[in-house]
Amino acid sequence: MHFLVVFKNVGSQLFPEEFSMERITMAHGAGGTVMSDLIKNHVLKHLGGSSAEVPLEALDDSAVIDNIVLKSDSHAVKPLFFPGGDIGRLAVAGTVNDIAMVGAEPVALTCGMILEEGLPIADLDRILESMEKTCKEAGVYVVTGDTKVVEKSGFGGCIINTSGIGKRNEALEKNILEVKKHRTFDSRWVLDSNLRKGDKLIVSGTMGDHGITILSAQEGYNFGSQIKSDVTPLNNVVMKLLNVGGIVAMKDPTRGGLSNSLNEWSMKSKVGIMVQESKVPLRGDVKAACEMLGLDPLEIGNEGKVLIGVVPQKAEEILSALRETKEGKDAQIIGEATSNFSEVVLETVVGGKRIMAPPIGDPVPRIC
Amino acid sequence: MHFLVVFKNVGSQLFPEEFSMERITMAHGAGGTVMSDLIKNHVLKHLGGSSAEVPLEALDDSAVIDNIVLKSDSHAVKPLFFPGGDIGRLAVAGTVNDIAMVGAEPVALTCGMILEEGLPIADLDRILESMEKTCKEAGVYVVTGDTKVVEKSGFGGCIINTSGIGKRNEALEKNILEVKKHRTFDSRWVLDSNLRKGDKLIVSGTMGDHGITILSAQEGYNFGSQIKSDVTPLNNVVMKLLNVGGIVAMKDPTRGGLSNSLNEWSMKSKVGIMVQESKVPLRGDVKAACEMLGLDPLEIGNEGKVLIGVVPQKAEEILSALRETKEGKDAQIIGEATSNFSEVVLETVVGGKRIMAPPIGDPVPRIC
Repeated sequence: MHFLVVFKNVGSQLFPEEFSMERITMAHGAGGTVMSDLIKNHVLKHLGGSSAEVPLEALDDSAVIDNIVLKSDSHAVKPLFFPGGDIGRLAVAGTVNDIAMVGAEPVALTCGMILEEGLPIADLDRILESMEKTCKEAGVYVVTGDTKVVEKSGFGGCIINTSGIGKRNEALEKNILEVKKHRTFDSRWVLDSNLRKGDKLIVSGTMGDHGITILSAQEGYNFGSQIKSDVTPLNNVVMKLLNVGGIVAMKDPTRGGLSNSLNEWSMKSKVGIMVQESKVPLRGDVKAACEMLGLDPLEIGNEGKVLIGVVPQKAEEILSALRETKEGKDAQIIGEATSNFSEVVLETVVGGKRIMAPPIGDPVPRIC
Repeated sequence: MHFLVVFKNVGSQLFPEEFSMERITMAHGAGGTVMSDLIKNHVLKHLGGSSAEVPLEALDDSAVIDNIVLKSDSHAVKPLFFPGGDIGRLAVAGTVNDIAMVGAEPVALTCGMILEEGLPIADLDRILESMEKTCKEAGVYVVTGDTKVVEKSGFGGCIINTSGIGKRNEALEKNILEVKKHRTFDSRWVLDSNLRKGDKLIVSGTMGDHGITILSAQEGYNFGSQIKSDVTPLNNVVMKLLNVGGIVAMKDPTRGGLSNSLNEWSMKSKVGIMVQESKVPLRGDVKAACEMLGLDPLEIGNEGKVLIGVVPQKAEEILSALRETKEGKDAQIIGEATSNFSEVVLETVVGGKRIMAPPIGDPVPRIC
């Protein structure tokens, strides 16, 4: 029912009435069940098969092989510049964050640019300057790259792939030791599959800011106040939290938002998840925009937030440490893992309970 | 003079009469001096600055940091399928080869796909199947990936970024020991800057096959016989040659062809290079096609060939080992490094000498 509203308002291009099994649609890149089916039924059928410690098949934030964390992320956000950020900041933060999400310290990035004929070189300079600034914030460097140009075709001027490597460090070792004080834990990394009943779930701040910013920029909406993207590198915050310890899983809720991330965790960890809607931080203007457009803010992507699964004994300590940071000042404990059921269940503001099904996709196209 | 011919025949889109300093043109992605200026004046101004062993600034085939070889390559070849290969084979071989070119053994790949709305899923399956097959040939796996979709805009259906990591192995150590028997050598890798006077230059086979294949496919030319792309992973051949030893530099002459690679070597190694035109292997049909179109086959890109710089004492041995392989059966010693001059000089078939200036770009757009 919900999606019919989405179709009519903004998503007709993203969610065609029938999902063609014959051609690629925007939904195949929107981070929900349609994309996940494409990956499982097509990509994994041919690629993968490695003996990596965290292989392609894990579909986690990053892979791990030979103790090296490896991640690749293409960024096709449209428009290139938006309130709070741009494609350059997104490209650096996106990959740095995915490396940090498995508990690793980012070591180096690559930068593969697809430029569209006609892109003003001044725009390219702005993007590169923003990448430079974001790299400095994150404390990483671009060490290799590649540039390709394609004919003017209106895809938006620039697509950037950043890949990167990361490594274990003392903070991760300390974190794992702390987890082991409280329960058995046989993982060497912070993974989607590590959640166990009783673990507390924390989000670092307000949900949906990035996606609603991009939607506003794409459609020319004006929601009265300036909604800004949250795009930011989170590796320094993550290192601080790992030093506190007790974290078992982390995820940056990008495409498909919090709802997609929680459903992935529930599936991969084989636990139920209970979330209290009233605890999920939301900006008033984002909430209002979502109500107006018939969108669920929990299905809207973020680019500077982290979802954390932590052993219950350390939840308050992690929450306090997170709230001391600029990026985590609005952090909340939003729920916990449970063995009472196997789905993601939302306890709504009015006290009802509903299953939070995995989203078909992110209703905002090309947010990252 | 030569380039005026190129302009009129096929390159008007690639080489506009004036190189705009304000907007991106096709030449900015064509692997020659225009691209190199863009990278030096814009990309390096903002990115780089790392303390990596082989950093971004080296502009070598791959970077090296913490003993890990790291490479990123985006593939925007048009059309997606062509005689002898497809974008999937190209994406795997391209990155594997760049890792092998510094003397490393490829460990793992990433796959970041940009799909265009409307791409037939059957085409995606063909591409993935080809990646799978090429990965098997090279003995590597894709361990992580990312999928994005952009609206139908006519850029060609699919762009694939493959990044990858590689590591040192025994063959590289053995190769370096062998070099050190014959001259002082302080590099830990096989690099563009390692060439010294007297080193012999070998190419593994015929030049220009890939570029002319793509041009034929793009323009619907028919050159009487079937010219096929040479796209293939070279890492196994390279490992075999490193075990013979004596190699100081390697490069796969892709965009801008042999001419661009030799000029990069000359500049980075600060040596002159003498090449005998009569020794450069060329297919008859590629040569004829180039004559017809006013193109220089030495400026046309390859995807399955390696240019090797080797200490003179080992040149014949490397040549023999190379000729024993399927990929290197047409290998030739084509010239040597010299201190008599500082440019790349071609001794032509008729006995004249001319400076082989670095190409402005590859005259065939979107070959990789």
